[in-house]
Amino acid sequence: MNTATLLCSCTDRSGIVAALTHFVAEYGGNVIDLDQHTDSETNQFFMRLVWDLRNSALSRDDLPGAMGIVAKKFHNMHWSISFSTPLPRVAVLVSKTQHCLADLLLRHQMGEMPGEMALVVGNHGDLADLARHFGVPFAHIPATRDNKEQAELEQRALLRERGIDLVVLARYMQVLGPEFVNEWTGRIINIHHSFLPAFVGAKPYHQAKARGVKLIGATAHYVTAELDQGPIITQGVTTVSHRDEVEDLIRKGRDIERQVLAQAVRLHLERRVIVAGNRTLVFQ
Amino acid sequence: MNTATLLCSCTDRSGIVAALTHFVAEYGGNVIDLDQHTDSETNQFFMRLVWDLRNSALSRDDLPGAMGIVAKKFHNMHWSISFSTPLPRVAVLVSKTQHCLADLLLRHQMGEMPGEMALVVGNHGDLADLARHFGVPFAHIPATRDNKEQAELEQRALLRERGIDLVVLARYMQVLGPEFVNEWTGRIINIHHSFLPAFVGAKPYHQAKARGVKLIGATAHYVTAELDQGPIITQGVTTVSHRDEVEDLIRKGRDIERQVLAQAVRLHLERRVIVAGNRTLVFQ
Amino acid sequence: MNTATLLCSCTDRSGIVAALTHFVAEYGGNVIDLDQHTDSETNQFFMRLVWDLRNSALSRDDLPGAMGIVAKKFHNMHWSISFSTPLPRVAVLVSKTQHCLADLLLRHQMGEMPGEMALVVGNHGDLADLARHFGVPFAHIPATRDNKEQAELEQRALLRERGIDLVVLARYMQVLGPEFVNEWTGRIINIHHSFLPAFVGAKPYHQAKARGVKLIGATAHYVTAELDQGPIITQGVTTVSHRDEVEDLIRKGRDIERQVLAQAVRLHLERRVIVAGNRTLVFQ
Amino acid sequence: MNTATLLCSCTDRSGIVAALTHFVAEYGGNVIDLDQHTDSETNQFFMRLVWDLRNSALSRDDLPGAMGIVAKKFHNMHWSISFSTPLPRVAVLVSKTQHCLADLLLRHQMGEMPGEMALVVGNHGDLADLARHFGVPFAHIPATRDNKEQAELEQRALLRERGIDLVVLARYMQVLGPEFVNEWTGRIINIHHSFLPAFVGAKPYHQAKARGVKLIGATAHYVTAELDQGPIITQGVTTVSHRDEVEDLIRKGRDIERQVLAQAVRLHLERRVIVAGNRTLVFQ
Repeated sequence: MNTATLLCSCTDRSGIVAALTHFVAEYGGNVIDLDQHTDSETNQFFMRLVWDLRNSALSRDDLPGAMGIVAKKFHNMHWSISFSTPLPRVAVLVSKTQHCLADLLLRHQMGEMPGEMALVVGNHGDLADLARHFGVPFAHIPATRDNKEQAELEQRALLRERGIDLVVLARYMQVLGPEFVNEWTGRIINIHHSFLPAFVGAKPYHQAKARGVKLIGATAHYVTAELDQGPIITQGVTTVSHRDEVEDLIRKGRDIERQVLAQAVRLHLERRVIVAGNRTLVFQ
Repeated sequence: MNTATLLCSCTDRSGIVAALTHFVAEYGGNVIDLDQHTDSETNQFFMRLVWDLRNSALSRDDLPGAMGIVAKKFHNMHWSISFSTPLPRVAVLVSKTQHCLADLLLRHQMGEMPGEMALVVGNHGDLADLARHFGVPFAHIPATRDNKEQAELEQRALLRERGIDLVVLARYMQVLGPEFVNEWTGRIINIHHSFLPAFVGAKPYHQAKARGVKLIGATAHYVTAELDQGPIITQGVTTVSHRDEVEDLIRKGRDIERQVLAQAVRLHLERRVIVAGNRTLVFQ
Repeated sequence: MNTATLLCSCTDRSGIVAALTHFVAEYGGNVIDLDQHTDSETNQFFMRLVWDLRNSALSRDDLPGAMGIVAKKFHNMHWSISFSTPLPRVAVLVSKTQHCLADLLLRHQMGEMPGEMALVVGNHGDLADLARHFGVPFAHIPATRDNKEQAELEQRALLRERGIDLVVLARYMQVLGPEFVNEWTGRIINIHHSFLPAFVGAKPYHQAKARGVKLIGATAHYVTAELDQGPIITQGVTTVSHRDEVEDLIRKGRDIERQVLAQAVRLHLERRVIVAGNRTLVFQ
Repeated sequence: MNTATLLCSCTDRSGIVAALTHFVAEYGGNVIDLDQHTDSETNQFFMRLVWDLRNSALSRDDLPGAMGIVAKKFHNMHWSISFSTPLPRVAVLVSKTQHCLADLLLRHQMGEMPGEMALVVGNHGDLADLARHFGVPFAHIPATRDNKEQAELEQRALLRERGIDLVVLARYMQVLGPEFVNEWTGRIINIHHSFLPAFVGAKPYHQAKARGVKLIGATAHYVTAELDQGPIITQGVTTVSHRDEVEDLIRKGRDIERQVLAQAVRLHLERRVIVAGNRTLVFQ
């Protein structure tokens, strides 16, 4: 189905839903999914609206202009419209660890991901074969602490050149610099191998073992300038016990990591996520 | 907050959301929660709409009439409007088993349940003390296989007299007759101590033990004429192992039962459930 | 069944299980449950051993002495033997919040707890009625920041007088002083209304809301001198979303808290927990 | 570590654990894992015992003979000893659906599976490439309803020839004949795309949608002559709602299926499963 999706937020007042759904209906659109939320503390209104464009009297090119006129009626409205086609283009940044990449590629091949796997970029070459098996171009851009600045320039140029919409860090072991993060604000998803905010930083499974926790988890979040502090999209946990050695925690962690990351990527690609400050609204 | 909640369904077409939210806004209501779903197979539209009545130009008495006029514009629209006050009145039917009743009463006392615990009816007198501790009237109407017909007439008269809106079967060990079920269609919630449709019927935990399952569950559903086949509202499971004797399964089952039942009752009281044929839509 | 339970740990070597099970068999005991674990990092051996005393040639009084002789063969063995009767005696310390106490009392009444609910001590009087309903003595010992030292002396005297074996802090809102903690090392269980180590400290649900997490949890742990840092027994989580206000988080938290606390108390009463440093082994 | 694992069961009596652990210690073995269970209903004793062979005075060849002598002391003892090396050899039977196979191969590559992926057999050729990517031999033996008998003879010959220890049906869409099942009793694991015993048979996700359930699941079990009725090893569930179309249920089901199957295969390969009648004991 050929659809448009509106994500928007503004100061709450009476009549917002009526005005926006009227706007859709007026031009022949048929609402197929609507979800909204009003944050009682901040008095902010948020909405996700999906409609069928089959009988739309407005062309795709004209839709944003028309929406802009409607949006002016509301205080402080932020909005974006996207279309079901073409599919958003995804690049995956990887190092040597394969489980998250393999999972994303497999899910994509099975049709679970409403996006195009357009590119895998590795700072090591280890995962080139895996990408090739699934028919996805692989670019090897060596990145170390020493050449990071130069490498990121190359990465960013490549992402632009390939028309990428979303960058997924699938156990990418480098911290991205501020220019990279700024250019891609709200469009980089990272998987943190921990149940944030516990065990921030390195070796979370060793930390978990040392603390004797009975659950471990993983967190998918948007990347912001502050390391591991960006808006959380999804989280998952699994039970552990004293029998689990650190390697068992790592194995169990891999399972959670790839599920949580895949879920976050799909939610983003389905345009179900609105970022509000350092939190997200996820319309499921 | 003083609110109205509309639950409605009709054949899908363009403009339904716009018309209904316009109706709300026109009379000074402010939408605070809206959730909708279109069933692609049956082309049915479903919506839950909650709005603030603070500035409403329509009195409560006039609202249904005005809504009736709007509803006529849509094909086959079923709708109901309810208000945040007075709270719906709940009666709990019990036998001798206390865990579900105790849980409901405790949650009510803690303010988790947007309803009034108005009555407990026991076919045995065992739980009178428990009801009394929580300040809820208890009626003892002995019901056995032999006097069931007469007992149900008494029960139904009492429920009507006390202005009950919802009947909860909290491990009530009698099967309700068709007249009772018909009078209360869509307003009786039962907890089935099994993960339906597995282990329908008696002694599910013995069945589960015999089959060697690794998970057991519970199902809350509306009661219909066909035993244990009514629309499912919520389900839960918990893990079990070969170490669990039947009594352990029963203990673990109790935990799931009371959680699942309490969740179903709250969802109903918050008017989040629409029944469609033998299924439910639960707007969470 | 009349049983003995041995919990022990020592430096690992060959033949420990054989020696201890031989000891049991030699005197006519029949092993009905055995679980062991060797920590590969520290080379420590841990075991839980339960045996039927029906045909035991040793009296209860003689058993510890005989075991002491066996234990000497092993390096650094720590051990304790307990018996299935009499049941361990439990005291619950509370303030004003009732859900954890109510849950424990209810479970006890349903026969889920292999202990005797011997005493409830409140620093406020609010929960006296609840304890009374379940037939458990309630002692009101007002404790505030100012009189804490004196109040703890009273509490400890009362616990001793009543022959208490386990102290449960069921949302008790005072921090226990070091003398109290030292006297009851390994025998005080607290429920922390958070998924430790995240959100240590006050108002975890407000912290969780501010951070926008998608899961919240609770942690039951033994109380040690360092606040909220004691060995973890059990943990649980539940999903949350942007729709959950702080009061919803608190409500969902209550559900997790009482389940997690009850599970930890039962595990302790069944003598399934061995504390090793700041971690626990839980033989389930 | 070079280890032996004993799985055994017999009629319960006093002294079994002592005798068996003494047997291990006597010949220089060191117990590193022991788990046992006594079924109170049937009075059957079950044990899993793992020991370090480093200092073993008995050769691998002599161990079974020595164990046989010990076993005779106990009534009706069934036992098997296996060694940590060589790794058990696994064959995976597939049709066209790839997610379970891909998951097993990926986990094997990551070192999660203590077995050797020795062979993939497809009744279609679709998954040959996938097997090749992971370096596992692929055999294409076309099997349809018409040639099933002949095809199974070929499959069985090939499995024997390759020294296979475990057969995994990874969404293999043919029902195995009784000769195949008999030859491989207790050594064929199937994944059933449903939470058994609910929705036995074809199209479980369509059945689940029609019934309006709120949870779906998957079950891994040993294959027996009676279809879908064999001993259950593991089960998993995930939540669903009215928003999930059949294709969403299938997608969510795939996630559960591959997790549950992989877990069952790992448990079997780690020799943690004892089959007792139509149930399993899983020593985790």
